[in-house]
Amino acid sequence: MLRPWHTILPIDFGNELAVYQQIADGIIAEIKKGRLRPGTPLPGSRVLADDIGVNRKTVVLAYEALIAEGWLETTGKRGTFVSGELPRFKNEPPRTGSSFGFNDYHTIQPMQGSVTANLIAFNDGLPDVRLAPMEELARAYKRIFKQKARWRMLGYGSEKGEERLRLALTAMLSHKRGMNVHHNDICITRGSQMALYLTAHTLISNGDTVAMESPGYLPAWQTFGKAGAKLVPIKVDDKGMVIEELEQLCKSRRIKAVYVTPHHQFPTAVSMKVERRLKLIELSNRYGFAIIEDDYDHEFHFEAKSLLPLASNAHAANVIYISSLSKLVAPAVRIGYVTGPAAFIQSLASLRSIIDRQGDTIMEQAIAELMEEGAINRHAKRAFGIYGERRELMDQYLTTHLSKRVTYQKPEGGLAFWVRFNQPVDTEELRGKLLKKGVSIMSTERFSFTGEPLNALRLGYASLTQTELEEGIKTIATVVKR
Amino acid sequence: MLRPWHTILPIDFGNELAVYQQIADGIIAEIKKGRLRPGTPLPGSRVLADDIGVNRKTVVLAYEALIAEGWLETTGKRGTFVSGELPRFKNEPPRTGSSFGFNDYHTIQPMQGSVTANLIAFNDGLPDVRLAPMEELARAYKRIFKQKARWRMLGYGSEKGEERLRLALTAMLSHKRGMNVHHNDICITRGSQMALYLTAHTLISNGDTVAMESPGYLPAWQTFGKAGAKLVPIKVDDKGMVIEELEQLCKSRRIKAVYVTPHHQFPTAVSMKVERRLKLIELSNRYGFAIIEDDYDHEFHFEAKSLLPLASNAHAANVIYISSLSKLVAPAVRIGYVTGPAAFIQSLASLRSIIDRQGDTIMEQAIAELMEEGAINRHAKRAFGIYGERRELMDQYLTTHLSKRVTYQKPEGGLAFWVRFNQPVDTEELRGKLLKKGVSIMSTERFSFTGEPLNALRLGYASLTQTELEEGIKTIATVVKR
Repeated sequence: MLRPWHTILPIDFGNELAVYQQIADGIIAEIKKGRLRPGTPLPGSRVLADDIGVNRKTVVLAYEALIAEGWLETTGKRGTFVSGELPRFKNEPPRTGSSFGFNDYHTIQPMQGSVTANLIAFNDGLPDVRLAPMEELARAYKRIFKQKARWRMLGYGSEKGEERLRLALTAMLSHKRGMNVHHNDICITRGSQMALYLTAHTLISNGDTVAMESPGYLPAWQTFGKAGAKLVPIKVDDKGMVIEELEQLCKSRRIKAVYVTPHHQFPTAVSMKVERRLKLIELSNRYGFAIIEDDYDHEFHFEAKSLLPLASNAHAANVIYISSLSKLVAPAVRIGYVTGPAAFIQSLASLRSIIDRQGDTIMEQAIAELMEEGAINRHAKRAFGIYGERRELMDQYLTTHLSKRVTYQKPEGGLAFWVRFNQPVDTEELRGKLLKKGVSIMSTERFSFTGEPLNALRLGYASLTQTELEEGIKTIATVVKR
Repeated sequence: MLRPWHTILPIDFGNELAVYQQIADGIIAEIKKGRLRPGTPLPGSRVLADDIGVNRKTVVLAYEALIAEGWLETTGKRGTFVSGELPRFKNEPPRTGSSFGFNDYHTIQPMQGSVTANLIAFNDGLPDVRLAPMEELARAYKRIFKQKARWRMLGYGSEKGEERLRLALTAMLSHKRGMNVHHNDICITRGSQMALYLTAHTLISNGDTVAMESPGYLPAWQTFGKAGAKLVPIKVDDKGMVIEELEQLCKSRRIKAVYVTPHHQFPTAVSMKVERRLKLIELSNRYGFAIIEDDYDHEFHFEAKSLLPLASNAHAANVIYISSLSKLVAPAVRIGYVTGPAAFIQSLASLRSIIDRQGDTIMEQAIAELMEEGAINRHAKRAFGIYGERRELMDQYLTTHLSKRVTYQKPEGGLAFWVRFNQPVDTEELRGKLLKKGVSIMSTERFSFTGEPLNALRLGYASLTQTELEEGIKTIATVVKR
């Protein structure tokens, strides 16, 4: 130890850190650097205090702290020493990089975003965040923060979510979707993605077979795959999942579950026809497999039909029903939910408790408030009207500008069109070309689980205004025609 | 079909459901009940319209909807029939109970709640929600909802969490905890529980050995166990985890990770001594295992010591550091975070994207706002002062009323005391007796992973006022003395 202490421990009296703390920190730094070695004696408190220009009591305080923490030790009157119990570092270079291995989840493809600056973005079928009921949401949060029992909501709550919101959902499911659900058999989740994750991990044992729509929803494919399921793609045609193919599969092996998006199939936007629905329920009862019904945008069904969920059918005993308010309010409002047999939901909620303990109580209360006062309904009606118009415009522009190149069915509902090219088109190349012209489309190949090229586009229209829609479709037409 | 149509389809013109929809719903109900069978002809639209007293066009609309959906079919001029493709239900009783099996997570013990009405509750060591910075939080939410870019935050965001909050955390970790972390190497989670879950599932392959503190934190034990780890309990003494025992384990088998709560060990409240800390880091580097450092209530350290996290040590290359703002703000404000080697955090964030896609953007923005403006710091100082006083009171009341029955160390920090009985006490029986007298304590046996009785209590004091603390300790003393 050659340097004087006041150069080693420069005290900054303007620092917010207490002076004794600065001294202690400085000594620790010297120990870590190896300049103060185990057994090295420290100067007496008076000597050090004089040297660095502080009160002696301050040094005593620092020494006491370091002794209590084990950096220093004192042997009665002999003085204070650097602790002998410190393991010596073998001059290894600091932070040489970690040496433990871990599971690589990089292969999981993230869901694609909704808002891209200065681009006309045909997304996956997301709502227009510009229409989100922001004022209503802000007011609901404000009221929630002012309510009498506000302290209560800041503690821990039920892992199934706020009872108030579960009751509001129960009423909505009964009135609008013909579903008779007890609020204890609902688990509120963070968006439908968490409902999928919880369902997969509650349902699947390693190696279980799950039948999936193909083309289909990649995040579901990934979620069930990572949960250990063996995935079997089942074809989708213009009536929805081909149930005959599923029946063949059931005859050849035991299947654990079927994942379906019957209301508006993802990505083809087809609504599953009623005979397929009834047949699916019949198969589920006969073979004892679960139907995972993902009803991700129930509200936006534009054709004149009473299309109720599978889960509303009196004979459907094996349906796990997943839905969400995220598509209705905004993607960031991650309120999804899952209902199903009571014991299943109970187990799923227990799993949830070790994932994130509980949902966002404050947000759940705010959304319950909006449902109770009818604001969600009013917003749904308004959005329904606007998206309905945009759907008509989309239909019109596709017919005007692209009818010779593509085939499509105007979808009965949902927020996207499924547009198939009449001639083979490299959709990835198309995507690159369009991006240069300020139009973004989603990658189609993620929807294909069989490797078969889909030669189609899923064009979400709900986030685009009339001008953007026309401009976007025109641009696609120009690029495709070349 | 004997009954007249107007009794089968009673139209309610005051109903919010359109009349054609009511007709369609009624026909579907008859089909489902089996009273209208496949192939049955329906009356002509004019006949039905007259019978039920509606406009003919309304009936046509209903028929069209049912045809499009597949319930009915039409064969040109022959008329309209119930669709022949409907599978007949074999008069099975509806909803006979589900027939699929699933994983049973009921064994997961939920974390225990914080607020219990009319009870003096010694909890696990939770903050006092009555002190939560409610006004500040409400104002932050309000500002967030008014900001210019508010629409943007309603779309999808980064699975690592809002960059703004990650930057605020980076600054805090650097200033207060001596940690040099890049904001891309932080993943914000929903409380430290999700950080634990993500860490476990990113780190563990089936059968990996994880060393755990014993007694220890049950939710961590359950989380690593459910992730497939083989768990080995390591003793904890008055210097923290007994690292010599860990070293013996390392010599006998390969271990993947060690889970530690070095700042304030859960449940014993011991702060790990520095020689143990350095030895732990040395072992981690030598044997290549990960150190999972759960620093769940860093802010509340009352003794005069520079006790920085293991993660701040320049030689600690294998530390996965988990912390949280939930203990600082309120349990319902579920903002936790995890940092570690860049590639590890990247993989962990990918896993997160299939669990719930992303965090609560609105809450993350609000908390970032509070950190930036210093409100979190001000709240921390205020809470620190109040909890510090309560800690002194707790010490005083324990000495006054229970010193003959118990042994304890006044903890250097954390929001709970670990109180050991001098004589064997059935703590579960004690719990029952106390409950009858209006005092609740946590079950101690959940902390023991070896089956050994702990003969101790973890008494969280921070949520109780002076009166409640004195009353609570007195009651415990009365019951124990009998």
